[in-house]
Amino acid sequence: MPLSYPRSAALFDRARRVIPGGIYGHVTPAATVPGALPSYAEAGHGARYRDLDGHEFIDFMCGYGPLLLGYHHPEVEAAADTARARGTCFNHPTSLMVELAEALVARIDFADWAVFAKNGSDLTTWAVQVAREATGRRKVLKARGAYHGTHAWCSPGHGGLIAEDRAHVHEFLWNDVASLEALFAGLAGDVAAVIVTPFHHPAYADSVLPTPEFVAAVNRLCAAHGVLLVLDDVRCFPRLHVGGSHRAYGWRPDLAVYCKALGNGHPIAACAGRGDYQVAASKVFLTGSYWNDPVPMAAALKVLEISARDAVPEVLARAGQRFVAGFLALGQKHGIPLVASGPPAMPYVRVAEDPGFQRMQELCAAVAREGVYLHPHHNWFLGTAHTDAEIDEALSRIDRALASLG
Amino acid sequence: MPLSYPRSAALFDRARRVIPGGIYGHVTPAATVPGALPSYAEAGHGARYRDLDGHEFIDFMCGYGPLLLGYHHPEVEAAADTARARGTCFNHPTSLMVELAEALVARIDFADWAVFAKNGSDLTTWAVQVAREATGRRKVLKARGAYHGTHAWCSPGHGGLIAEDRAHVHEFLWNDVASLEALFAGLAGDVAAVIVTPFHHPAYADSVLPTPEFVAAVNRLCAAHGVLLVLDDVRCFPRLHVGGSHRAYGWRPDLAVYCKALGNGHPIAACAGRGDYQVAASKVFLTGSYWNDPVPMAAALKVLEISARDAVPEVLARAGQRFVAGFLALGQKHGIPLVASGPPAMPYVRVAEDPGFQRMQELCAAVAREGVYLHPHHNWFLGTAHTDAEIDEALSRIDRALASLG
Repeated sequence: MPLSYPRSAALFDRARRVIPGGIYGHVTPAATVPGALPSYAEAGHGARYRDLDGHEFIDFMCGYGPLLLGYHHPEVEAAADTARARGTCFNHPTSLMVELAEALVARIDFADWAVFAKNGSDLTTWAVQVAREATGRRKVLKARGAYHGTHAWCSPGHGGLIAEDRAHVHEFLWNDVASLEALFAGLAGDVAAVIVTPFHHPAYADSVLPTPEFVAAVNRLCAAHGVLLVLDDVRCFPRLHVGGSHRAYGWRPDLAVYCKALGNGHPIAACAGRGDYQVAASKVFLTGSYWNDPVPMAAALKVLEISARDAVPEVLARAGQRFVAGFLALGQKHGIPLVASGPPAMPYVRVAEDPGFQRMQELCAAVAREGVYLHPHHNWFLGTAHTDAEIDEALSRIDRALASLG
Repeated sequence: MPLSYPRSAALFDRARRVIPGGIYGHVTPAATVPGALPSYAEAGHGARYRDLDGHEFIDFMCGYGPLLLGYHHPEVEAAADTARARGTCFNHPTSLMVELAEALVARIDFADWAVFAKNGSDLTTWAVQVAREATGRRKVLKARGAYHGTHAWCSPGHGGLIAEDRAHVHEFLWNDVASLEALFAGLAGDVAAVIVTPFHHPAYADSVLPTPEFVAAVNRLCAAHGVLLVLDDVRCFPRLHVGGSHRAYGWRPDLAVYCKALGNGHPIAACAGRGDYQVAASKVFLTGSYWNDPVPMAAALKVLEISARDAVPEVLARAGQRFVAGFLALGQKHGIPLVASGPPAMPYVRVAEDPGFQRMQELCAAVAREGVYLHPHHNWFLGTAHTDAEIDEALSRIDRALASLG
């Protein structure tokens, strides 16, 4: 008995008339399973949300990352409320901007300074510009398949782009030292930045942790050539390490970008950097209409505090391990071969030998019918609202779902 | 007796250590008068805010535009609270996204659809990409001195930019039909978009309304050459016309971008467009971590409702007229020749024959000492919190300030 989405279908019909594509971006229904998975949210609390048609899901996407501490975390919301009571979009920053920069500098070992924006892409792009300003060079090296945002130099789309947008962007292969060395050799003297995610988390493909040899080579090549290493920690921070995800794998970044979970849903992005690049950073124009709003900064300060105090990365590693191991065991029980990759706090799970994702899509649809939301082609996100009880409840629902797949 | 800012100075010393430039972007103290005007906000209410050192100002910048209805507008905050109680950063949009798109389509005469983001620059840039996608052409024409955001193609800065960023951006002179015609002739067949602000509002220069001949020429040239006219209504909407600022001057846009005041400080930007370009728009990738958050959408719906219900543009035109006329009269009384330009709801006022802005900076410093915040090089913003009583109180403070300048 498939879930029925009459209210969502009616709303999507209205949406298609007044919004190109109806629902756009990474959350387009076409990116999941049209008609089988929810399209509109109605309300959320803790680890669960309800869609427009009244189905409740235990949620393993956390808003694609932001909801590190679950919907409506009382301490984060109280901090945001305190700031909001004073006012939002001032002519100037407030002291919270300085406090948040100081908190990041204290937390991130290599960082001497920080700046703030609204989107991860605002600051991955700005970091590349800082690298160009600092080096006087043009080239940016990124891993094939890595997502770094929506700006033209890195957008995963093709529409509206022109050749100049990527004239100086070159791709190496993840964990392939030779491909990176070849780029350095071929572009000698014109490489400004290498940008990496802490581990490789492409959509529609397994996650790949970096090999120690690859990390060492990236660190070594950047240092040897005076190239800035930019860590795109937008998706991971602080799920892997409260000191920044470079600590989990040994990266030695010059600049790192944080976003998504930094404000537990309140809109904020940050770039932190080494003191060597503070002057160059001050020369690259950076601003936005709402960027001085202290409310997300208050939320981010509280998220940083809670993440360390409650050992959130360790909690999520255990929760993810419990969930992924339980899930794989259920696959075995029901004769569905599953493959898991990536760190347990951000696992990527798929059905084996399923290149078109059809079986994984059927699995996610079946799981949704039992009240668990999983994405068929994108890594999932654990949060602290995934208590043992929530995970065990989710696994028992998944058990029923897999049984129904036969 | 100049204002003293000991707490702000101490905080700025901390800030300079951990933030490049200490305070960056359009709100850097260097953009106003270092040491004479406030640098950090503490709290705001209605038309007034208090800085970190406890000085209270009647505020004529409104956060550089967003605070159309003043700080803490009760109806807007109630709408935001209702949405926030349900949850923020979901895996999907909510029905509020569709309702907001429908509200914009109903309000904006040429618009058949809308999309949403977080910064004005997100969508001026996306609109240019939609124009490129729709036309298969590359060139963008903009007015010299016009600000359209921080993306590399339009940033007012120079740091970190490379030649390719602006390879296909060409500038005409505002109100100069011949300069625009020359670009069209020289770039024949490769122009994708012309982007204009409703009126010309450069920083450090008088505002200039468009001549009817210029508007007619832009409309005609775009139509004749199949070029998309993009209206950057980020700064103006809805201060000049609740139906979009093109209505105030006769522009015929294909795409228009709104931001700043759209959510009365809640972070949201919108692009609305003609149906002819809906397919092209659906092909240009657009997304962000926090873009489905319903809270700013609830705020924007309420702002649109209030703007029409309360005839906000008319109210602000009257308030601006009262303020600017009163200000100019005070200049005459005290022998300080003042020049005003731009629409009264967003006036730009300066001292005559003051090319280095020294007298205007002294004037703003003197006015700040009496508790009124004015910017010496940027247009100001009226809001509905500027009641007659607030304006008259501001004028009486300015009277004292100008008397002190002698």
